Amino acid sequence: MKSLKGKRVVFLVEDGYEDLECWYPKIRLEEEGVETVVVSRETGTHESKHGYPIVATHTPSDIELESIDGVVIPGGTGSPDKLRRSDEVTDLVRKVHEDGGLVAIICHAGWVPISAGILSGKRVTGYQAIKDDLINAGAQYEDKPIVRDENLISSRHPGDLPDFAKGIVEALSSR
Amino acid sequence: MKSLKGKRVVFLVEDGYEDLECWYPKIRLEEEGVETVVVSRETGTHESKHGYPIVATHTPSDIELESIDGVVIPGGTGSPDKLRRSDEVTDLVRKVHEDGGLVAIICHAGWVPISAGILSGKRVTGYQAIKDDLINAGAQYEDKPIVRDENLISSRHPGDLPDFAKGIVEALSSR
Repeated sequence: MKSLKGKRVVFLVEDGYEDLECWYPKIRLEEEGVETVVVSRETGTHESKHGYPIVATHTPSDIELESIDGVVIPGGTGSPDKLRRSDEVTDLVRKVHEDGGLVAIICHAGWVPISAGILSGKRVTGYQAIKDDLINAGAQYEDKPIVRDENLISSRHPGDLPDFAKGIVEALSSR
Repeated sequence: MKSLKGKRVVFLVEDGYEDLECWYPKIRLEEEGVETVVVSRETGTHESKHGYPIVATHTPSDIELESIDGVVIPGGTGSPDKLRRSDEVTDLVRKVHEDGGLVAIICHAGWVPISAGILSGKRVTGYQAIKDDLINAGAQYEDKPIVRDENLISSRHPGDLPDFAKGIVEALSSR
């Protein structure tokens, strides 16, 4: 496995993000030497579903596309529900995807790439509750711990985190 | 690196455990194929510092020493403060240590091996607030992200989690 030192990955969060769906892949990538950047609609502290604080240091407009290797979007109903309302956010996700960067979504995070308009014809999974939204956006839904369709990785819920993180590490290694 | 499939590691938790200090190494070991077993003074649901629930399936007396490869003890002031009051808990930690199993502590978790009486002459780190307690128990304190003294691994706080987890994975691989 190639070292991931020098890679840079954005985590897109808002208030209500699912604690472990953010922090597990974030610390996991840091363990591999990846620089993680927390991005939100406004910089400053955001609280998880259970109140665990995280500090967003950047907004999407601060991010130079060429400087990042991918975007991870945690679930937690409230977080992707807020993120998808921002054109800045959905533009970033679309551009990263079109540029061949990794987009990794878990749980309810699928709402963000739906609003970025990048799921048509893609194989994805996600939390059962948003299955119909994924299908209506033109995706092919699969009920599996992890689904990878080229540079798009998706998982269903916190129980899938070991597979989700392993998939992200592998995808970044082969990039 | 050897596969860790077939290994079994106990996580000792009580109410008030630090969310990420428990869940990051737990999911990380599961990613490597390790079976994790959540143990507390009483079985059932316990809540983290921020209210993230975890289910303890066993008490210390349910654990056969030969069946486990190590014990991880997360911090969060309240959790190790409660755990150290139980002879069942400190007996388990002492026996695992004497048997050559891994004991991994982070943050305030050092209180538990202090009460298990296993720190005399050992090199350890831990949260700054308990530095004096570690020294008074006969340990040599080092202010580093991770300190390994044979089968004893210690870290200071959540910011050390990438090093802590990597150290645990390496120690279990060489066991």
